[in-house]
Amino acid sequence: MKPALAFSKTTVRRITSGVEHEKSDDVLAVEEPLEIRLGFADGTHRAVSITMRTPGEDGELAVGFLFTEGIIRSADQVRQIRHCGLKIGKMKGTVDRVAALNSNTIRVDLAEGVELDLKKLERHFYTTSSCGVCGKSSIEALQAHAKPIADPGFRVASDIIHGMPKQLRDVQDVFERTGGLHASALFNADGSLDIVREDVGRHNALDKVIGAKFLESQLPLSDKVLLVSGRASFELVQKALMAGIPILAAVGAPSSLAVELADEFGMTLVGFVRDGRFNIYCGEQRIATKS
Amino acid sequence: MKPALAFSKTTVRRITSGVEHEKSDDVLAVEEPLEIRLGFADGTHRAVSITMRTPGEDGELAVGFLFTEGIIRSADQVRQIRHCGLKIGKMKGTVDRVAALNSNTIRVDLAEGVELDLKKLERHFYTTSSCGVCGKSSIEALQAHAKPIADPGFRVASDIIHGMPKQLRDVQDVFERTGGLHASALFNADGSLDIVREDVGRHNALDKVIGAKFLESQLPLSDKVLLVSGRASFELVQKALMAGIPILAAVGAPSSLAVELADEFGMTLVGFVRDGRFNIYCGEQRIATKS
Repeated sequence: MKPALAFSKTTVRRITSGVEHEKSDDVLAVEEPLEIRLGFADGTHRAVSITMRTPGEDGELAVGFLFTEGIIRSADQVRQIRHCGLKIGKMKGTVDRVAALNSNTIRVDLAEGVELDLKKLERHFYTTSSCGVCGKSSIEALQAHAKPIADPGFRVASDIIHGMPKQLRDVQDVFERTGGLHASALFNADGSLDIVREDVGRHNALDKVIGAKFLESQLPLSDKVLLVSGRASFELVQKALMAGIPILAAVGAPSSLAVELADEFGMTLVGFVRDGRFNIYCGEQRIATKS
Repeated sequence: MKPALAFSKTTVRRITSGVEHEKSDDVLAVEEPLEIRLGFADGTHRAVSITMRTPGEDGELAVGFLFTEGIIRSADQVRQIRHCGLKIGKMKGTVDRVAALNSNTIRVDLAEGVELDLKKLERHFYTTSSCGVCGKSSIEALQAHAKPIADPGFRVASDIIHGMPKQLRDVQDVFERTGGLHASALFNADGSLDIVREDVGRHNALDKVIGAKFLESQLPLSDKVLLVSGRASFELVQKALMAGIPILAAVGAPSSLAVELADEFGMTLVGFVRDGRFNIYCGEQRIATKS
């Protein structure tokens, strides 16, 4: 159950076939800007990104973003995560939602001795975006950061894939109420649900999932299946790739570049997972079908 | 009918209830990066943004983006739009899709004497993104650019709203084939469809629509209704506001900040336009319902 501030109340006029009903209450998915800052050991800081997000897992979102963009690599590089004057604590990725709504700036302080390539950060300013990977102008640019998915034999049965969307829907309570949130979820090979995060931005939902695992030093996620609630874009494949996820399944359609990237890096990409059906676009060796 | 390069062919394995069918052909929505550059009268240029887009209306997308971000204001500020060595012509926003796929850089050359606030552009580098408005950290930041929607009596009947999604679906041929494209469409007050654009990014689809009208010097769009295929975010409301569109209707849900912004600037915001129903979140005076 999500804390109440993932949605906000409003009053709405409902129209059916041109006829207006009485005004009634409704709930909306909350969207607020978040500025992500990097704090350096010498006490200086700089802003890295601003994204429109649903408040509440800002620490996870910030480190997930920094990790999937190739800026930080491991949890021990992070000294603390602070939420605009409000300490979140060294490794805790979530904050009180009321505080988060009132504080749209989060700062990830680096541990002493951590050196970042500031030139890369500079390029980052120009090329990147809350859309994360949009700045990468080609698949080649990724090869500096991402490694191909190894194939040590991780496999799932097709029935596991078929069963994931219902499990996701069952826990997506804010979506149920607002219709307005994207979700990312990790599943284990036995089909059990590991973690779910929701956000108005699909890239944020995935950054939160990856950030949560980053903070627990559980990367790479080489024995997990990722399910995303919408379509599979280049950006989502890129983020999943950075986290070493071998199978990405989408409820919606993949794009051309999503398939190209997944194929290039040995990831299994599955789309249109709904109504007892799905399509495999590449990496079919990881999905065991019935004969 | 879209030229063929809005989608690409692939081979897919279809699974139904765990059973694999024969491999079959499928089509994907094309996603490719586009770098948008501004060319100055002195011959210099600078990159402003990179976005993942569906190729084909790159000129419209580029000027739509520059306009909705408050960087350029009118078509006479643009001398020509060039597609990486390939001339598109002074005011033409569309290019051959084959050329577009091979040329992921577009340059908008400013007319002589056009002065831009380069500091604003500088801030832009840092804050903005292919998500367009994500950089604006508050509604207040918008007030420098956007004006409230005037209310000179533009009204539409609720039946016009009810009828829009079907008209959009009827012309969304690439979506039909791939399930992978967002759409933005403008409708006239009598319910007739004016213009539709599709893209893997919903912000791009709207930038293309606004860019097309910008190139025809038809802004502000004060007698149009905008329909978007998905949810209504802050960003889409902001772009519609820059173009002076009085009514924004979404097939999906609006976010909290989308409603707040629309309300603040006097725009009518309608959501969940489907199955003969819709919700009015603000600006209800522009929708005539039956008694």
